[in-house]
Amino acid sequence: MKNNKPFFKKKNFEHRKDFPVQAQPFLVKDLSLESVGKTALLKGLVDGISQTEGPTLFYLDDGTGTFTLKGFIGPGKRAYPEIEETNAVKAKVQIKEYNGTLEGEIIKLEKLEGQDAEFVKKQIEEVQRQRAKPINTEFLIKSKILEKLKSHFIKAATEIRLAIIQNRPIIVRHHNDADGYSSGFALERGILPLIEEQHSSSKAAWEFFVRSPCAAPFYEIDDSIRDTSTSLRNAAKFSNKMPLVIIADNGSTEQDLFGIQQGRVHGMDFIVVDHHPYEEDVISKEVKAHINPFLIGESGSEFSAGMLCTELARFISPVLNISQIPAMAGLADRINNPEAMEQYLKIAEKEGYSKELSKKIATVIDFVSAKLRFMEAREYIEVLFGEPRGKQKKLVDLMIPYINDLESKGLEIAKSAAKTEKIGDKTLQTLMIEETYPGFGFYPKPGKALGMLHDWIQTEKKLDKVVSAGIMSSAITLRATDGAEFSVHEFMNLIDKKIPSAFVEGGGHKNAGSITFVPNKRKDILELLREYLKK
Amino acid sequence: MKNNKPFFKKKNFEHRKDFPVQAQPFLVKDLSLESVGKTALLKGLVDGISQTEGPTLFYLDDGTGTFTLKGFIGPGKRAYPEIEETNAVKAKVQIKEYNGTLEGEIIKLEKLEGQDAEFVKKQIEEVQRQRAKPINTEFLIKSKILEKLKSHFIKAATEIRLAIIQNRPIIVRHHNDADGYSSGFALERGILPLIEEQHSSSKAAWEFFVRSPCAAPFYEIDDSIRDTSTSLRNAAKFSNKMPLVIIADNGSTEQDLFGIQQGRVHGMDFIVVDHHPYEEDVISKEVKAHINPFLIGESGSEFSAGMLCTELARFISPVLNISQIPAMAGLADRINNPEAMEQYLKIAEKEGYSKELSKKIATVIDFVSAKLRFMEAREYIEVLFGEPRGKQKKLVDLMIPYINDLESKGLEIAKSAAKTEKIGDKTLQTLMIEETYPGFGFYPKPGKALGMLHDWIQTEKKLDKVVSAGIMSSAITLRATDGAEFSVHEFMNLIDKKIPSAFVEGGGHKNAGSITFVPNKRKDILELLREYLKK
Amino acid sequence: MKNNKPFFKKKNFEHRKDFPVQAQPFLVKDLSLESVGKTALLKGLVDGISQTEGPTLFYLDDGTGTFTLKGFIGPGKRAYPEIEETNAVKAKVQIKEYNGTLEGEIIKLEKLEGQDAEFVKKQIEEVQRQRAKPINTEFLIKSKILEKLKSHFIKAATEIRLAIIQNRPIIVRHHNDADGYSSGFALERGILPLIEEQHSSSKAAWEFFVRSPCAAPFYEIDDSIRDTSTSLRNAAKFSNKMPLVIIADNGSTEQDLFGIQQGRVHGMDFIVVDHHPYEEDVISKEVKAHINPFLIGESGSEFSAGMLCTELARFISPVLNISQIPAMAGLADRINNPEAMEQYLKIAEKEGYSKELSKKIATVIDFVSAKLRFMEAREYIEVLFGEPRGKQKKLVDLMIPYINDLESKGLEIAKSAAKTEKIGDKTLQTLMIEETYPGFGFYPKPGKALGMLHDWIQTEKKLDKVVSAGIMSSAITLRATDGAEFSVHEFMNLIDKKIPSAFVEGGGHKNAGSITFVPNKRKDILELLREYLKK
Repeated sequence: MKNNKPFFKKKNFEHRKDFPVQAQPFLVKDLSLESVGKTALLKGLVDGISQTEGPTLFYLDDGTGTFTLKGFIGPGKRAYPEIEETNAVKAKVQIKEYNGTLEGEIIKLEKLEGQDAEFVKKQIEEVQRQRAKPINTEFLIKSKILEKLKSHFIKAATEIRLAIIQNRPIIVRHHNDADGYSSGFALERGILPLIEEQHSSSKAAWEFFVRSPCAAPFYEIDDSIRDTSTSLRNAAKFSNKMPLVIIADNGSTEQDLFGIQQGRVHGMDFIVVDHHPYEEDVISKEVKAHINPFLIGESGSEFSAGMLCTELARFISPVLNISQIPAMAGLADRINNPEAMEQYLKIAEKEGYSKELSKKIATVIDFVSAKLRFMEAREYIEVLFGEPRGKQKKLVDLMIPYINDLESKGLEIAKSAAKTEKIGDKTLQTLMIEETYPGFGFYPKPGKALGMLHDWIQTEKKLDKVVSAGIMSSAITLRATDGAEFSVHEFMNLIDKKIPSAFVEGGGHKNAGSITFVPNKRKDILELLREYLKK
Repeated sequence: MKNNKPFFKKKNFEHRKDFPVQAQPFLVKDLSLESVGKTALLKGLVDGISQTEGPTLFYLDDGTGTFTLKGFIGPGKRAYPEIEETNAVKAKVQIKEYNGTLEGEIIKLEKLEGQDAEFVKKQIEEVQRQRAKPINTEFLIKSKILEKLKSHFIKAATEIRLAIIQNRPIIVRHHNDADGYSSGFALERGILPLIEEQHSSSKAAWEFFVRSPCAAPFYEIDDSIRDTSTSLRNAAKFSNKMPLVIIADNGSTEQDLFGIQQGRVHGMDFIVVDHHPYEEDVISKEVKAHINPFLIGESGSEFSAGMLCTELARFISPVLNISQIPAMAGLADRINNPEAMEQYLKIAEKEGYSKELSKKIATVIDFVSAKLRFMEAREYIEVLFGEPRGKQKKLVDLMIPYINDLESKGLEIAKSAAKTEKIGDKTLQTLMIEETYPGFGFYPKPGKALGMLHDWIQTEKKLDKVVSAGIMSSAITLRATDGAEFSVHEFMNLIDKKIPSAFVEGGGHKNAGSITFVPNKRKDILELLREYLKK
Repeated sequence: MKNNKPFFKKKNFEHRKDFPVQAQPFLVKDLSLESVGKTALLKGLVDGISQTEGPTLFYLDDGTGTFTLKGFIGPGKRAYPEIEETNAVKAKVQIKEYNGTLEGEIIKLEKLEGQDAEFVKKQIEEVQRQRAKPINTEFLIKSKILEKLKSHFIKAATEIRLAIIQNRPIIVRHHNDADGYSSGFALERGILPLIEEQHSSSKAAWEFFVRSPCAAPFYEIDDSIRDTSTSLRNAAKFSNKMPLVIIADNGSTEQDLFGIQQGRVHGMDFIVVDHHPYEEDVISKEVKAHINPFLIGESGSEFSAGMLCTELARFISPVLNISQIPAMAGLADRINNPEAMEQYLKIAEKEGYSKELSKKIATVIDFVSAKLRFMEAREYIEVLFGEPRGKQKKLVDLMIPYINDLESKGLEIAKSAAKTEKIGDKTLQTLMIEETYPGFGFYPKPGKALGMLHDWIQTEKKLDKVVSAGIMSSAITLRATDGAEFSVHEFMNLIDKKIPSAFVEGGGHKNAGSITFVPNKRKDILELLREYLKK
């Protein structure tokens, strides 16, 4: 971080007109060009020290800003060697100006101990927390659910703003689909401007922020260990702090617990914004903030994560150009909340995004996500979300016919390979994925292909009680109509009871999800699926 | 690019003897040490601006070179804030010398608008285009095919040289075999010296050039999106321009179209040098230049891409040490053009590369390419191509016995698993790849193993009407003798007609290629193969 | 390396009291602040040259240290252009002080030629070799085997210390299990402090050292080519020397030979520390040093690589905090050497590591290694090994219940799928891995799962003559009890004799190993396994 010091912010010192002649305590934010030549007392934490060929520089943070103090006892010699990073100090300095930037020439620099130090630290955190409070707390739309969740939004926004003020890096990890990308991108738009304001370097946007998709549909231990390793390296090599991790469109379930706990051992903190259901809320007590409609007794089909994250982003940073995103995310995740969707669609329309265009963009994002896999591709994703609009349009116009073609082809393949059977008044449609599609990298992905097949059979055969199952050697992807009275979680519980040695795992929504299991139990599980549909 | 400014080139200003006393328009290339102290008028584009702690630096490009102008209105203050990058400007400066480098102290700096700006821009591009014209336009050998293609070579070389002059990065993407590596390496040798001359930094060779193999036998959308993502990031982070992409030994077919179009949306440009056949030329109108013997009614078996790219490299940069490459590339791809091969072999011989050595090197490259996969490994590849010769020899001597051993073993395995059947007067030899070879990373690769098996049966059983098929779950690799009157493309068209739901794709040459399809149509496709051989 | 010059070391010049008034030959290490103003003669090698905007800097290395000489003939102009890197030179300089660092202002600088140059080079290497000799040569424990291997340890430690003195990067490649990580980590602890002392930059620990696991259970050609490529690039881009590679817990077998030879072609050198058996010692003559109990007629089950590497690390750098590692490594690899284990366990106990804790840590390392795969994750691994202890404890406490759960689950799955058959008085237990476990990334890994199953059947069914085989499509993992009188190598030799076309490969220990083969020979090999057990 030595290269990215948040130097004194000029915009903070343009209003003062007078200045005390005598040294006296005051705040960094109150320093101005008129202070030059005066003597000032400052208290704060030493947030960094760097040794130049000339003086030693101490970066003093008092919660209202960071200010550079110069100590000199000889060229290249460390001044005040007793003062170390994170110490609380009291400084008497003369204010000087160097190339248009203010700095303090140290007259006296003392380490504070015991209660004095504690007091300063508390005061700073208090000031930081005050600054961290969101400025905007109004949602884009009117919604009772959002209002009920508002305190969660304020908590999350405050923690994110605080992390930025404290120079903590931020990692956003999101689900690898259109709703997940919408979530990640909205948060990115909310966070980056503040990071750029906080750090003076133009590279800060890359050094203090990363967004990337999860490989699995939860925050798995692999991702957690990888995030931790990278962060520990940045801590060792660049003196970075341990990051705040925001998990979006993932994170609320029991499967996310171990990854979160693992990160916390190493000083990482977490925020979760999700709309997936869980059996029991084991996450809230582990994270700084948790947003999920299920927390207030609502359902995850009423708000997608992209909708929630756009609202959160506006709490983080008030002026953003992302109001077209919720409509697109909601369409991508087939959100069933007419009141909210109507409002979001109207807003998107105003921004020039028709319903049709939003759907197309979601399709393109889904396709590109299959190609990018774990790559961040920040600037490419910007184009997909309309920065700039002209290139977004060109890309959508180029890709949609190509993708439609792949999807028709994918559906044709599925249709020619699928089998259906009547189970009572319900229809079970099965598709052997691995024998039907060339493996890895094929688009549409198994889940998408199954979804299209599931939609097709309803229209084509006029059925409303359908369960579709995409079968792999140790996994099944499931889609169900409301009429089928199916529940992914209920079915998983049933497997757990009847075939415990299958060690079933998985999740998703009630009508759409995936389960994994031990390969040699597949036959038993399919048998059980038929029984479950019979009842 | 701020770190890599192509500062004023000294070699361009050593000849002038006199200099006008009065300010008057002239070109950057005409500046010399004798200009110091004089006043000059310059017109050009602002190619970059950087703010020092002292003056503001403007990099003026007038097409003949880049010259640094200093503006000063206060320490660290931005001079002429109305002037931005890419503006056309008129500058009145006093020529000064600083540490042996010339620079212009700005007396007056004005933005040009409308027609004036347009005129300057056109003029600059004209000058750049003039400089970009190839110096050498003579081929290494006498060949009517090459002569017929000459205008394509000149177009391609000009565009590549222009990209370098305009500080555009260059990406070379080549087929992942010995001919593809030969293509990529020859181009690299042609391009790097010019990039190093253009940019003063010694790191420019890595910052403005990258060469790497394609994963598939075409420029697939995955590679295209990845190249675009990286380039957009470099544009955002380092102000790089969007690159010129050269696709070598790939790129001419319908399968390459979408990847190329995708890149163009983002401002990338393309050049294709290939010798693979296509159904219809959909590429020429999408690229800056296209070289392929099929474009002038010739066949791809007469020149390999490595031969073409070596010739092109010599148009780009006249003095190169690559004249041994065409022989090796031609041998690797079994080029059937005795007139050309004889000449190339003679040239290679003169450089100390016997036919046998060339074949060995091709084998080593093929082996190493299987290990490197997507890695660039620029310096390792240099060794393989004889830089330095001593290490190349040592490596070939070490590896050839080892590789021969693996190949014998691979052939033995193939022989013990292959099946043959008579179909009329033809022989169909089949090899179940996945049941025969341990997967991924095994050498020889399936295509190579099949090729050896195909060669072996001809010698061993004295057959000249043979088709060999390496069968995988959703792909077949094919090799045919001339006598078998087989055509990969004809067979693909047949599948498309008879089994449209197989969604066949693929390509290659007439007698050697690969097809992919939907796994559950494999049986039908093999049936159709037998029928096709019957006719 | 220009950024990481090993500048003059202050600690080396604090004791001299007097100094000659007249110019006379002496050593870099004898320079002190009291030398300032005097004229000195130095002989040595030019280890680097850098051109500043002012003078030219020559880094002179005389074997006792590196000293910066300044030559000035004009701002930014190259002084003494006839002197190049690696030249032997004679310099007459005036000693000056700049910002607290000594430097020599060149009065005269001459290139040495012929015998003079040779003499200086020899002398420097001699001095370096003297400095490279290990300071500590006492083992942590009393052991006749270690004593018999001592000369190997001294050779290895000397070569490693010499590489550091000569600014060579070091690459440690280790087996991807708990013993392998113990080996790599112990060496890392021994090497890093010396690298940090040698280079003044705080980034040197990352620039001159890398440790990472091998993908295969030997140093395969893929790793070798990758290490070479990276090193060649660092040589081209940063003027790095080619590295010394230490292979740990791998490296002694015939399968490692080609990778080592490949690296040597490019100027890499190798040291091997292993405890795996080999048919014939083909490695010793290829490497700078080789440590393996089999070299002195002992068995690999008496010392694990982690035990050997900890002892070696202490020869490299005398004061280290790693004495708890051998116990843990030995437990992980089930070392059967009560005398040594007792001593190591006692030492670990003293450091606060009970036998139980050591076992738990080994389990956690094994689990994490499955997640990290090829990542270095240096700082994460530090935590696993107890830096700091508090976080290690927290991580173990969090992970052990989770891992135990996965292992129970893995064992349950194995038990429900395994089959046993009596063959004479022996029991063969088989487990079809691919039909039993979901593929890639599953924990426990196949070898671990089979090991647990193998242990379980012994206890559960009170059997002591058991061979367990984990069967995959082209590989079998084997575990045997002593009572089964089984030998992985004997079985491999048998396959080679009876089914040569299976092209069997593999290795490991007598009672535990893995073999790979051609997939369509699996049935024959399993048949042969039964026959082999019959005899």
